[in-house]
Amino acid sequence: MLPMALPNLPTLLLFLFCLSRSSARYHPLDPLTPSEISTICRTIKSSHLASSKSLAFHYVGLDEPDKPDVLAWQSGRRAALHRRAFVIARADGQTHELYIDISNNNSITSDKIYDGFGYPRVNVEEQAAASALPFNHTPFVESVRKRGLELKEVVCLASTVGWFGEGRQGRRLVNLLCFVTGDTVNLYTRPLEGVTILVDLDAMEIVAYKDRKVVPVPKAAGTDYRASKQEPPFGPQTKPGVVVQPQGKGFTIDGHIVSWSNWVFHLSFDARAGVIISLASVQETENWTHRSVLYRGHVSELFVPYMNPSEEWYYRTFFDAGEYGFGLCASPLEPMMDCPADATFMDACYAGQDGKPVVIPNALCVFERYAGDPSWRHSEFEIPGKVVTEGRADASLVVRMVGTIANYDYVMDWEFKISGSIKLGVQTTGVVQVKATPYAHVDQITEDEHGTLVAENTMGVYHDHYITYYLDLDIDGSNNSFVNSKLKTVRVTDGGTPRKSYWTVVGETAKTEADGRVALGSEPAYQLVVNPNKRTKLGNNVGYRLISNGATATSLLSDDDYPQIRASYTKKQLWVTAYNKSERWAAGLYTDQSRGDDNLAVWSQRNRVIEDRDIVLWYTVGFHHIPCQEDFPLMPTLAGGFELRPYNFFESNPLIKIRPH
Amino acid sequence: MLPMALPNLPTLLLFLFCLSRSSARYHPLDPLTPSEISTICRTIKSSHLASSKSLAFHYVGLDEPDKPDVLAWQSGRRAALHRRAFVIARADGQTHELYIDISNNNSITSDKIYDGFGYPRVNVEEQAAASALPFNHTPFVESVRKRGLELKEVVCLASTVGWFGEGRQGRRLVNLLCFVTGDTVNLYTRPLEGVTILVDLDAMEIVAYKDRKVVPVPKAAGTDYRASKQEPPFGPQTKPGVVVQPQGKGFTIDGHIVSWSNWVFHLSFDARAGVIISLASVQETENWTHRSVLYRGHVSELFVPYMNPSEEWYYRTFFDAGEYGFGLCASPLEPMMDCPADATFMDACYAGQDGKPVVIPNALCVFERYAGDPSWRHSEFEIPGKVVTEGRADASLVVRMVGTIANYDYVMDWEFKISGSIKLGVQTTGVVQVKATPYAHVDQITEDEHGTLVAENTMGVYHDHYITYYLDLDIDGSNNSFVNSKLKTVRVTDGGTPRKSYWTVVGETAKTEADGRVALGSEPAYQLVVNPNKRTKLGNNVGYRLISNGATATSLLSDDDYPQIRASYTKKQLWVTAYNKSERWAAGLYTDQSRGDDNLAVWSQRNRVIEDRDIVLWYTVGFHHIPCQEDFPLMPTLAGGFELRPYNFFESNPLIKIRPH
Repeated sequence: MLPMALPNLPTLLLFLFCLSRSSARYHPLDPLTPSEISTICRTIKSSHLASSKSLAFHYVGLDEPDKPDVLAWQSGRRAALHRRAFVIARADGQTHELYIDISNNNSITSDKIYDGFGYPRVNVEEQAAASALPFNHTPFVESVRKRGLELKEVVCLASTVGWFGEGRQGRRLVNLLCFVTGDTVNLYTRPLEGVTILVDLDAMEIVAYKDRKVVPVPKAAGTDYRASKQEPPFGPQTKPGVVVQPQGKGFTIDGHIVSWSNWVFHLSFDARAGVIISLASVQETENWTHRSVLYRGHVSELFVPYMNPSEEWYYRTFFDAGEYGFGLCASPLEPMMDCPADATFMDACYAGQDGKPVVIPNALCVFERYAGDPSWRHSEFEIPGKVVTEGRADASLVVRMVGTIANYDYVMDWEFKISGSIKLGVQTTGVVQVKATPYAHVDQITEDEHGTLVAENTMGVYHDHYITYYLDLDIDGSNNSFVNSKLKTVRVTDGGTPRKSYWTVVGETAKTEADGRVALGSEPAYQLVVNPNKRTKLGNNVGYRLISNGATATSLLSDDDYPQIRASYTKKQLWVTAYNKSERWAAGLYTDQSRGDDNLAVWSQRNRVIEDRDIVLWYTVGFHHIPCQEDFPLMPTLAGGFELRPYNFFESNPLIKIRPH
Repeated sequence: MLPMALPNLPTLLLFLFCLSRSSARYHPLDPLTPSEISTICRTIKSSHLASSKSLAFHYVGLDEPDKPDVLAWQSGRRAALHRRAFVIARADGQTHELYIDISNNNSITSDKIYDGFGYPRVNVEEQAAASALPFNHTPFVESVRKRGLELKEVVCLASTVGWFGEGRQGRRLVNLLCFVTGDTVNLYTRPLEGVTILVDLDAMEIVAYKDRKVVPVPKAAGTDYRASKQEPPFGPQTKPGVVVQPQGKGFTIDGHIVSWSNWVFHLSFDARAGVIISLASVQETENWTHRSVLYRGHVSELFVPYMNPSEEWYYRTFFDAGEYGFGLCASPLEPMMDCPADATFMDACYAGQDGKPVVIPNALCVFERYAGDPSWRHSEFEIPGKVVTEGRADASLVVRMVGTIANYDYVMDWEFKISGSIKLGVQTTGVVQVKATPYAHVDQITEDEHGTLVAENTMGVYHDHYITYYLDLDIDGSNNSFVNSKLKTVRVTDGGTPRKSYWTVVGETAKTEADGRVALGSEPAYQLVVNPNKRTKLGNNVGYRLISNGATATSLLSDDDYPQIRASYTKKQLWVTAYNKSERWAAGLYTDQSRGDDNLAVWSQRNRVIEDRDIVLWYTVGFHHIPCQEDFPLMPTLAGGFELRPYNFFESNPLIKIRPH
C-alpha cells in the first residue's frame, strides 16, 4: 500500500536481455528491450521536448499492435508488424502521450498533451526525492526532536493523496508518511503518527506541514522479522522438502513463448501490470491443433482503501497499479523461499524516470507444481471379480510474480493445468499498515479506533484489497458471449412423483454491458464465457466457466464517497465489456488523483452490445481485512483467487488419455 | 452417490493392527481394533440375540468416553478409562442399540430397541445380496433381453429410497439401479434406464418391478478410463516430479498420535465418518505448552440430491455417510497417484455385517506438502543503504482419505499448517451420474432434460454435493463463543475530513442457537469462535476464524420437499450448537429413510444457550454441479473447502521465529 521509494537494486546491471531467455525469436507482443527503452527515451530527450528542464518518463511500454494484426501474425501471416512504443512523459507541468514508431527509426508519430483529470504514476525517483524533503524542513526536524527521536532513524515514504472533491485540476501532490527504524527493519510497525506533510511533486517542495498530535512510537522489540534477529525459543521446525524432476523440466521458454504440456502462451512484463499472459492456447489431443483461450490477461488494478477517516489516514485509498506501477514493484524472487529451487527465473525491466532501463533481477519465476494431489481418480468395486483403480497425479505450470508495494507483498500466480483450467491466485503477505495509538491494552479503548490492537501502541487498521484482473478471453475465437446460467428452483405441480421441487438452469446470454455486471452470490449461477459460433460435436457451445476460490469481497464504501467514485467498479466482482484496445486499466489510464470519469464502470455505462462480440471479462478478487495479532509483525499468506475452467470446451476430459509415468 | 456393493478387497487380510502403527500405546479415543470388533460381535452373537436368524451388524464403533473424562486423561490423570463400544444391529426386523463394556469382559450393558423413524446404514453385504436378486427375476431377465443385452454384462447396485411422505413406519427398502459394462469398466455411463426395481432388504426380495420405457444404452466407446484402454493419439505429457526429504520425514505417528511441527493430534477412523481428528492442539513457542484447538472433527454427512423429478430419479437424494457409511467407502490409496510416493499409509477396518472385521488397506495417508509457496515473505526497499528479503517456504501436513461412493470419489484432506491454520479440503472426482436419453445432439432436445448432454445418449444430471463437517472446536479450552463480526458501513457526518464513509466492525456474540445460524454472504462478516475467558496479553479474546475457500452453495429445494425436510440444515452453511455427545450426525443417527425429525436444524430449534459454552461448529461445503462434457467419462477434480485460521490466538505470527533450513 505504501509507495515504494527508489529500490536499492543493482541498477547498474543493465542486461542486454531483459525478461528474455536464450532465443532472439521475435514476437509482436514482446516487451520493450532495455536497448529499445534507451533508444526511445534518447529520441524523446532530443526531440521538441529537449528544451524542457523537467522531462520525466512515467510510462514507457509496448504499444501492442492491433489485435487483428497480431492474430493474423499468430495464424502464420508473419509479415513483420510495425513495432511501436507508448510513452507517458511529463514536461513543464504537462502530461504528454507519445507514440514512437520503433520500426521507423524511432520516429515520434504523435505527441498529445493530456488535459483530463488525473496524473500518470508517481515515479520511484520522485517518491525518493519527495521523501528526502522533510529532513531539511525545520518544522519536521522539530517534530522529530519533540518526539525524542533522531533524524537518522526516520524514513519517509510518499503516499498518493487521492481525490476528495477538489473542483479544478490541482497540483501533483503526495503526502509523506514517516516511520522510525531504529532497532528494526520493520519500519511500518513504527509510524511517526500525527504529522501531515504535503509535497508538490512538480515543484518538489513541501507545500503544507502540520504536526497535529504526538502519539508514542511503538517499540521496536518484536517487530524485526529477520532470522538473524530472532532469539530463542525458536519456532517449530519442519524437515526440508525438495521437488526433483528425474527427467528434467517439462517446459520450454523460447524468447517469450512458454510451452508446457498442452499449453502455449506468451509471457510478458509491463511496468504497470506486471505479468502479462497473451495468446494462451491449449492443444486439442484429437488433431493437435491449438485452440485459443485467452488473448491477453493481466492485473489491471489493485484498490486498497483504509477505513480510518481521520486527518492523517482518510486519503489512504491506494490504486497500486495506476499510482505506483505494480510491475515495477516486482520483488527479486528467492529460490527455496518464493519459488521452488529449480524454478526458472526471469529478469524484467522498466524505464526509470530519466529514461534509462532499470532491471529487476528474478522478477518472475516459472515452475511446475507437484502438490501431491490427483488430477482425477476413481476406484471401481462394483464389477464382479475385479477392482479397478485409476487416476493421475496432478501437475501444473505456475508463473509467479511478487509485487511489493512498500509494506504489502502480493504473491501473484498464473497456474496452468492440463485439464485446460487456468487458476489465478493471489496470496497477500507482508506487513499490515498500522497506526500508532496510546493504547497498550484493549480495555483502554473506549471508542471505534478503526482497527485491531495487534501490539502495544499499534493498531492494525481495517482495510480492503481489490485485485482486478483484465481477461480478454478468446474462447476458440474472438467473438464470445457471456452467459449467466442461473439455477432456478422449479416447483413440481404435476404430481407424477412425490418430489416437490428441483432446480434447473436458465441461461441468460448478456446482450449489452448492462447484463454483464454481476454481483456474485446474489443468486446461484454459473458464469460462462462461450463461443456462440463454435459447438462441440454434441452441440454444446464451447466455453469456459469462472469459479471463485474465495475472497469475493466487494466495496462497502458509500457510492458518493470519493474513493468509491474512483473505484466504482468494486461494487461488483464481475463485469463484461466490449473489447476496446484503450480500455485496460480498471481505474482509468491516469489513476493518480483520478475522478472516476474514466473507469470500468463508466465504460460499461455505454452499454455496448456484448453478445457474439470480442468481449473482456473483468474479475475482482476482494478481501476485507480485519487485522489480528497473527498479522503482526508480518502476516502469514492469505489466499484467494479464481479458476477459469473449460466448460464444454473439449469433447471430453482431456486428462484421461494421458499415459501414466 | 451410488451405493457401494461388496468391495472386492482382500478381506482375508485381517491384520492384527488396523489403523495403528508401531506402538501399542493406549489412547481412550483409539478406534476399535479388529480383535475388539471380533470379540464384541461374538459376544452379541452369543447373547440373548443368539436366537435371531437375521442378526446383522450395521455399526460397530467406539463409544467414546465422556468428554470430561477424556480431557482429564489428556491432562495427565491417566487412570484407565472404561472402554466401551456402541453397536447398532438389526435382528428380526428390529433395530437394536447396544452398549458393550469392553473393559468389563465385553459385557452388554444396555440393549435398547429403537422405534423411531429411519434405519441404520444399508450394509455392503445386503447391497450385494439385493443387487443379485434381479438376475433370477423373470421380468428383469426379460427387460434385459428386450434391450438386446446379455445378463452377464449387467450390474445392479442398491440405491437408497429416501422418504417421500409415507405415513407409517415402512419397510427397509432400496431401489436397484442397473448398468451395462460390456466393453468398459465405466458402468455408470451406461445406465439401463427405465426400469424400477424395489427390494425389501429384511425380506431380501423384489417387492415391485416396473419396466416403464426402453431407452438406448449409451455406447461403451470412449467411456473406459484405464490407461491400458487408451489409444493414440495420447494426451499431453508432463515430466514426473517427486518430493524428496533429505533429512527424512518431519512427522511421527505413535499409536494414533500424530506429531508434526507445532501440532499434535489423534487420528482415528470410523466406518461412518471416515477420518476423525481429535484433541488437536498447537504448541506455543513461548512456553512450549500445547493449547487446544479442536476436540473432535470429522465429516458428519454428505447430502447429494439429484435434480430430475422423474419416476426413476426423483428419490436419488443420497446421504452418503448415514445411508452407506463414508468411512467404509474409503478407497485403498495409491502412492504416486492419490498421495506422494513417500506418504505414510495406514489401514483401517470396520465391522462387516456378520461382525467380522473388514480391513481397508491404505485407507489413509499422511504426508508433508511442499507446494512451492512461501508461508510469508517480505522485501524491504525503503531503508537507505539496505535491501532486506525474508520469508519461509511453506510446508504443511496433510491427512487424506478418499471416499468412493460407487461412482463419485471425494478426496478429503485435513491440512495442518505451522501458522496454526487447519485447512479442510474437498476435491470431487470420479464419474458423474448420467441418465440415458434418446438424444445424440443438443438440437434434438426440446424440453428440460435436467442435465447436460455430455456424450451421445448420455445426460449428466444436475445435482448438488453438501459435505457437512462436525467441528467441536475447543479454542484454548472447552467454553467458547461464536462471534459474527459484521462489517458495517459508517456514514461520516462530522465533516472533519472529506471522506464520506468507511466500514467498521460490530461483533455480535451469539447468545443462543438461533444466533448461530449463518447464511454466508448474506452480509459481510468474519465468523469467529473465541474463548471469552482467555485473552491475549493485549486483551483480545483468543479465537479462530472460519474462512471459506469457495464452494458455498446451499440447497435450492423447497422447504417442504421431502429430501429438504431431511436435510433442512443445508439451507445455511454454518450452524453453531451446544455440545451434546449424541449430536454428531447432521442428518440424524438413523438416516436411511429418515424424516427430518432428528437433524441439526431440529437440534438448533431447541435454541440452547451457546455463549461461553462448549459449542460445536457445523460447516457445509456445497457444490451445485451442472455437468459439462469435460466431466465425461470421468471428471477432473473440483475443489472446495475452508480454513480455520488463528485469530488473536497467538500473541504474534508464530512463523517468524522459525529458523530457515
